[in-house]
Amino acid sequence: MAHKKVAVLVAGSWGTALARVLADNGNSVKLWTRNPVQAEQINRERRNEKFLPGAILPEGITATTDIADAVSDAEAVLFVAPSSAMRDVARQAAPYLHKNTLVIHATKGFEIETLKRMSTVLAEELGRPEDGIVVLSGPSHAEEVINRHPTTIVVASKDMACAEAAQDLFMNDAYFRVYTNPDVIGVETAGAIKNIIALGAGLSDGLGFGDNAKAALITRGLAEIARLGAAMGANPLTFAGLAGVGDLIVTCTSKHSRNWRAGSMLAQGLPLEEVLERMGMVVEGVRTTKAAHVLASKHGVEMPITDQLYEVLFEGLSPEQAVGALMGRVRTHEIEEIASASRDKWLNPKPGL
Amino acid sequence: MAHKKVAVLVAGSWGTALARVLADNGNSVKLWTRNPVQAEQINRERRNEKFLPGAILPEGITATTDIADAVSDAEAVLFVAPSSAMRDVARQAAPYLHKNTLVIHATKGFEIETLKRMSTVLAEELGRPEDGIVVLSGPSHAEEVINRHPTTIVVASKDMACAEAAQDLFMNDAYFRVYTNPDVIGVETAGAIKNIIALGAGLSDGLGFGDNAKAALITRGLAEIARLGAAMGANPLTFAGLAGVGDLIVTCTSKHSRNWRAGSMLAQGLPLEEVLERMGMVVEGVRTTKAAHVLASKHGVEMPITDQLYEVLFEGLSPEQAVGALMGRVRTHEIEEIASASRDKWLNPKPGL
Repeated sequence: MAHKKVAVLVAGSWGTALARVLADNGNSVKLWTRNPVQAEQINRERRNEKFLPGAILPEGITATTDIADAVSDAEAVLFVAPSSAMRDVARQAAPYLHKNTLVIHATKGFEIETLKRMSTVLAEELGRPEDGIVVLSGPSHAEEVINRHPTTIVVASKDMACAEAAQDLFMNDAYFRVYTNPDVIGVETAGAIKNIIALGAGLSDGLGFGDNAKAALITRGLAEIARLGAAMGANPLTFAGLAGVGDLIVTCTSKHSRNWRAGSMLAQGLPLEEVLERMGMVVEGVRTTKAAHVLASKHGVEMPITDQLYEVLFEGLSPEQAVGALMGRVRTHEIEEIASASRDKWLNPKPGL
Repeated sequence: MAHKKVAVLVAGSWGTALARVLADNGNSVKLWTRNPVQAEQINRERRNEKFLPGAILPEGITATTDIADAVSDAEAVLFVAPSSAMRDVARQAAPYLHKNTLVIHATKGFEIETLKRMSTVLAEELGRPEDGIVVLSGPSHAEEVINRHPTTIVVASKDMACAEAAQDLFMNDAYFRVYTNPDVIGVETAGAIKNIIALGAGLSDGLGFGDNAKAALITRGLAEIARLGAAMGANPLTFAGLAGVGDLIVTCTSKHSRNWRAGSMLAQGLPLEEVLERMGMVVEGVRTTKAAHVLASKHGVEMPITDQLYEVLFEGLSPEQAVGALMGRVRTHEIEEIASASRDKWLNPKPGL
């Protein structure tokens, strides 16, 4: 059983759920929030009603609005800010963070302006090498973790000692199982891009298609995400793992997903502006489709599903035409060539390297 | 557009749905059934009410009870008998089959007594090499295909010319997209073993666990299926494709699945005999769990989920204990070593070989 001091930034639903795992494992957790009302609710009533209504938080969690207090004596810091706020939160934490503190993040998505991965953003703002940073990802509704339903996730770092330190913090026998993986690029890319496929799944369901079409979309979507990931330096096998297909299954089969709902509205013929207005909040898949479209062209990777979604979202193609274009492509083999640099690196490592 | 003579044996739901695809593509299809009443209903009323209630079949399908009539002038024969009947059907067809006729099958499962794959059974009974035989598989409810909902499948053969000939027969722009894959062992193994994971998914849902647990089960189940497949000579990437994860998603998220229902009854504490009695029909996942247990031990492959299901089914372990055993294993890496023979063969082919 670990007994470390851990800071969690910030107290959203995923941050709070992961704080419970850390506290259940005997760690002493400081949960940072900018909102003093929320901090008081957590400390006095053991609840975080806005983000995880109904859940009672364990005693091992203390909320604070003072980032210096949260971070300065922490042996590990977990960053779970939204991707758009990550750079700002890291900048605020940086002055108080010890050099030896383990840095973990559990945020899905790219920094949209720069297309940088979260561990790159953290490395830049914290002034430390990317290699020791750990990313935590996988199929995990916060609402299930807070209720201690069995959940498995992956922690990835280039530095396996750091990944294993994170594994020790989070893993328990009761409900939270943690696997390590050295492939940070793969885990981060999979987590960011899966929302495109969730959008497509909503579109397919909204058009009245069945399980065959949705399974095809998830599977072929996974193939093109893996293709882009491999071109960016990821191990294609990561996409067959928890952060890849595992997370994709959870995202695409849950009707609570914002991306799924946006897709199903698009299928009903609503224009994008109206869909976004009705949703009233950020739909990650829309921004990520644009980002992946740029990345695919930059890396020379074919992404037919992403391309068709891009056309539907931004170029006025009808969803029916998009499906027609996807079904009518020339005949192909199922398993494409893997980018050879990635293949050499991940699938056939030279002994001694 | 293909215009071939094709025989389909037999007229179950999947055989009839694939016969529609072939007829829609302009082929002339003979659909064999032992049942004269069923044959007359198909020929007179264009219906196969027992297997696909409500569907109207196209004119290009003719039913026959005479296997010689079905097979003797066919340019291609599609075998879709249940796995337990495949050897018998092949034996009956063999005397009438031309040497040049393309042989395709779309049956999931091993021959349970011998643990042989279907293409081995066909090769033995038809007296021809396994290399030219094609297997068709993927995420495909027959009820959706018969209604022309978009569907994608994979055709695999060691002889790529045969796979492409099958691709030409089935592929169309409207609703049926076909990918080729050279990996027969992978496609057949994935299709046979997926029912174990469906059984496990029913068990997980029956115990009241959530989407996190089910996604974990599918993902980690896929990893152990791929591990067994690789040890048997398959390409691990096949398991990330349509016949692998694609079919697994369709099977594990459909509550119509017999395997899922059997699993959820086991979770309620019913003993296996009573579950099987209540189901009143074969539950493939139960037989396949036994088969995979034997194969895993024969090939020296670790299959923790299959092992726990085996204990629940045949050794009286409670479902709760099985979950406990799965969550409490020692910490591990996500991506295991791939059997090196498989890696060398599939992932790093030598130029010129």
